[in-house]
Amino acid sequence: MATERLRSQMTFLIELDRMKGIFRQSSVYSGQRMENDAEHSWHVTVMAMVLQEYAAEEIDIAHVLELLTTHDLVEIYAGDTFAYDPAGNQDKYQRESASADRLYALLPQDQTPRFRALWEEYESRATPEARFAAAIDRLQPLLSNWLNEGVNWKAHQVKAAAVRNRMAPIRDSAPALWELTEEIIRASLAQGYLSE
Amino acid sequence: MATERLRSQMTFLIELDRMKGIFRQSSVYSGQRMENDAEHSWHVTVMAMVLQEYAAEEIDIAHVLELLTTHDLVEIYAGDTFAYDPAGNQDKYQRESASADRLYALLPQDQTPRFRALWEEYESRATPEARFAAAIDRLQPLLSNWLNEGVNWKAHQVKAAAVRNRMAPIRDSAPALWELTEEIIRASLAQGYLSE
Repeated sequence: MATERLRSQMTFLIELDRMKGIFRQSSVYSGQRMENDAEHSWHVTVMAMVLQEYAAEEIDIAHVLELLTTHDLVEIYAGDTFAYDPAGNQDKYQRESASADRLYALLPQDQTPRFRALWEEYESRATPEARFAAAIDRLQPLLSNWLNEGVNWKAHQVKAAAVRNRMAPIRDSAPALWELTEEIIRASLAQGYLSE
Repeated sequence: MATERLRSQMTFLIELDRMKGIFRQSSVYSGQRMENDAEHSWHVTVMAMVLQEYAAEEIDIAHVLELLTTHDLVEIYAGDTFAYDPAGNQDKYQRESASADRLYALLPQDQTPRFRALWEEYESRATPEARFAAAIDRLQPLLSNWLNEGVNWKAHQVKAAAVRNRMAPIRDSAPALWELTEEIIRASLAQGYLSE
C-alpha cells in the first residue's frame, strides 16, 4: 500500500489538474481559443530556458523554473484576475493567499512551507529569480495579444500606458527584452490593437 | 529593433505554441476532454518537483525540470504516438528525430545543439535525470486512465501486461512509486478498466 505521505502528494497533484480548466484573458497564439493556466505555465517555463541570457541580474535558472511552474497554482481556488481590472486586483493578494493556505495544506507538512514560499517569493519580487520570472510572465501574453491582433485588448479598451505599466518587470529585469516590448506596443498602437 | 538572435528565439517560442493543439491519448483528470502536450508537460514538471524524494538515484532536479519541459517538443511535427500502438512506435524515433532537426534549427546556432541534446538525453535514458523524468512521464497518464475509469484503455483493449511493461521506468528509477503503480493496475483489473 502507498504510504499516507504519498497519498497526500497524489491528492495534491490530482487537485492541480484543475489548472487545465482555469482560462485566462489571453488566447493561444493562433487565436482559436483562450488558453488555460497549465498551458501558460508550461509556455513561460520553456521561454525562461530560451531567454535566460537576457536576465539583467545573475539568476539560478533552476529556481526560475520552479517559480514559473508553480506561480499560478493559487488561481485554482482564487481564479484568474484580469491584469487590467483594477477592482479585481484590489483584493487579489487576499484571495490568492487564502487559496494558497487551502491548496498547500494538501501536501505533507514538511512540503507545505516550501511550496508556499515559492509563491510568496514570486509575489514579493524579492529575488533576481522572482523578478526575471515576472518579466517572462508578462512577455508570454504580450505576444499572444500581438499575434491575435489585440482581440482581448480591444474587447477591454486597454490603453498603451496600462500595458507599459504592466510590462514594467521586463524593463527592470530584462532590458534587452524591453526593446522588443516597446516595438510590439508601438506596432499595436499603429494597428489599432491598443488605444493611446 | 530587436536583434536577429532574439527574433530567432521568438520564432522558436511562438512555434512552440503548437504544443497546445497536440492532443494525447489520455484525458484531463476530470475526463471531460483529452489533454494536450503543453498541459501534460506542465503537469509532469510539477509532479517531479513534488515527488523528487522517490528517485532511486541521486538527481539534479533542475535538470529533470528542463528535460520534462522539453521532452515532447518533437511532437510538434511528429505528432503524438499512442503508447500502446506497436506500428506507430516502430518509426517513432526516425519521425521525432526529423522533427527535432526542423524545430531546433529555428533557434540561434549555439542554442540548437543544447536543446537537441536535452531530447536525445531524455530518449536515451542514459542519465539518472532522464530515467526519473521518464518515470514521471509514465505516472502522469496512468493516473489519468485510473481517474477516468479506463475509458481510453477500454477503447483500445489495452492489457495489464502492456501497462506494466510501459510503466517499467517507474519500477527502475522510483521503486517507491512502483507500489502505487501496481496498486492502480490491480484495481484497474478488478474494475474492468484493463483486461488480463
